[in-house]
Amino acid sequence: MIQSHGYAAQQATTPLAPYKFTRRDPKERDVVVEIDYCGVCHSDIHSVRNEWQNAIYPMVPGHEIIGRVTAVGNKVTRFKVGDRVGVGVIVDSCRTCPSCKANEEQYCEVGITLTYGAYDKYGELTQGGYSNNIVADEHFVHSVSTKLDPAGVAPLLCAGITTYSPLRHWKVGPGKKVGIVGLGGLGHMALKFAHAFGAHVVQFTTSESKIADAKRLGADDVVISKDPAAMKKEANSFDFILDTVSAVHDLNAYLALLKRDATYCQVGLPDRPPMINMGNLLFKRRAMSGSIIGGMAQTQEMLDYCAEHNIVSDVEIIPIQKVNEAFERVIKADVKYRFVIDMASLKQA
Amino acid sequence: MIQSHGYAAQQATTPLAPYKFTRRDPKERDVVVEIDYCGVCHSDIHSVRNEWQNAIYPMVPGHEIIGRVTAVGNKVTRFKVGDRVGVGVIVDSCRTCPSCKANEEQYCEVGITLTYGAYDKYGELTQGGYSNNIVADEHFVHSVSTKLDPAGVAPLLCAGITTYSPLRHWKVGPGKKVGIVGLGGLGHMALKFAHAFGAHVVQFTTSESKIADAKRLGADDVVISKDPAAMKKEANSFDFILDTVSAVHDLNAYLALLKRDATYCQVGLPDRPPMINMGNLLFKRRAMSGSIIGGMAQTQEMLDYCAEHNIVSDVEIIPIQKVNEAFERVIKADVKYRFVIDMASLKQA
Repeated sequence: MIQSHGYAAQQATTPLAPYKFTRRDPKERDVVVEIDYCGVCHSDIHSVRNEWQNAIYPMVPGHEIIGRVTAVGNKVTRFKVGDRVGVGVIVDSCRTCPSCKANEEQYCEVGITLTYGAYDKYGELTQGGYSNNIVADEHFVHSVSTKLDPAGVAPLLCAGITTYSPLRHWKVGPGKKVGIVGLGGLGHMALKFAHAFGAHVVQFTTSESKIADAKRLGADDVVISKDPAAMKKEANSFDFILDTVSAVHDLNAYLALLKRDATYCQVGLPDRPPMINMGNLLFKRRAMSGSIIGGMAQTQEMLDYCAEHNIVSDVEIIPIQKVNEAFERVIKADVKYRFVIDMASLKQA
Repeated sequence: MIQSHGYAAQQATTPLAPYKFTRRDPKERDVVVEIDYCGVCHSDIHSVRNEWQNAIYPMVPGHEIIGRVTAVGNKVTRFKVGDRVGVGVIVDSCRTCPSCKANEEQYCEVGITLTYGAYDKYGELTQGGYSNNIVADEHFVHSVSTKLDPAGVAPLLCAGITTYSPLRHWKVGPGKKVGIVGLGGLGHMALKFAHAFGAHVVQFTTSESKIADAKRLGADDVVISKDPAAMKKEANSFDFILDTVSAVHDLNAYLALLKRDATYCQVGLPDRPPMINMGNLLFKRRAMSGSIIGGMAQTQEMLDYCAEHNIVSDVEIIPIQKVNEAFERVIKADVKYRFVIDMASLKQA
């Protein structure tokens, strides 16, 4: 057994607090990772507060993990001690269903094992990256270039791949006009990627205060979504819109901006079903779709792309002792654009 | 001016009754058609009763029109007097926008001219096929094989193309498992086409009484959609589902039946937005879409395909004097599967 310590929620209503636990000794294909940084994803807050009604406690959240390999099982081929690596949202899948075979493990038809808050195939409760170490099968571990700032890389493991994957799937690139709805942890990565892919990128925001930052991050244009005249000017002009907002909002105003046969993709999961005016789909054969994270091969591709193009998340680094305060600021969208916990701070606990 | 007579609604609350009117003399690219049969589409009822709040009276409905050419303008190249032809839901579009240029006139970005109840480019109110004749630009007129029963062909001009087009667009064919929701005027054509295209076709219905007929029409299997266990057995198994039901109904049970990356296409337009559980889309990257009729080239392709494969609609032929009664029966879904008016009956009026 490996000794671990981190910050856990003991129940939905208590703050995160120091917690000691154990992880399995590495199996033959496992990698043991000493964690350097872990991003704070909004879903960590939903999870620890049991807002999705599926929480299992104690819960150590965190699925935007960057660290160094400290041990490997005897059949591990891709990593050696000392390598910089990342672990994201999932740590297992069935590996044999059509989605797994297609390198789309995130859609595993048997079911994925989440990095925290789930029982794994050994019957153990998974615990996430707000901790000093993690053990995972090498298939779910990614190589991370040392060229990139590791704190800025951490959010790529969730916010990065969640936006990279649909932008690739729907072939965003030169000659395409792409809209990004929402400018937070996911939205700012979507902007960087869509810009890097060579598309004409339009940021939608409710807030004029975000215009300058959106342009700095890669937007060619910014549209204030509360302004009906500004929205109307964009009608029937988009090849793809990526919506990163999980709060319930009116999608119909955006659907009308898509060209014939174009897709609106939601990566935030609203807690109530949106009311979709079907006429907005029928009369232009538009599609409403959604996407979650990305497959393991694509996650590696994304990390390699980021190394090549020098792309990381804009982060605010915090010690783990500030994590409960950070949660409150995430809820108020008071972060540009992702909190990342420096795990060296765990030693101060 | 050409003298015309048919049955019209004078307002939303009065039954259809005999009505005399005029149509334009044929312009150089116009075709004059003596109408033999016209199908009764559910949208005729919505329109004459102003259920879509855009009715213009007097209104002669009807957009599933089959007849014979009796005169042509001097620049008409595709038709000559005596040809059997069809006219469908639209009689004009801009012809220059990207959708028109792509032979997708139904999605014209300037706006389509409906066969009835709309003002055309001459400023005249269009009047439909519950009448003895019609005048239309040859681009919106289709050649119809004399091999097929003309009464059975009439519904192809709306119910036929409305189902043929999405089945083609989403590449339904051998090796694909396709669901059809609803077994009415549209649904029975969808069954015939999907079967003819070589797909494995599953009919969804709420009514056990429709099982035998669905199988006769081409279903390989029938699932009673009210039976949760039967529905659950089909989870994650469909490549495409075509929903022909315009009454508001729960789409989420069907969305869960699609494979990863598969599309649910609605061709009926519900009068209230359905509540779509976005998780059903995100967790399998499924798409919700919709489609309307089809382009002019594809409508001709569909009619030629029907001639080659001997496909027509199952119809009940009525004299026009029975049209108000037929409307009531359509509303009760008491028709297998389309009423078609025999325009010879107009002479009895």
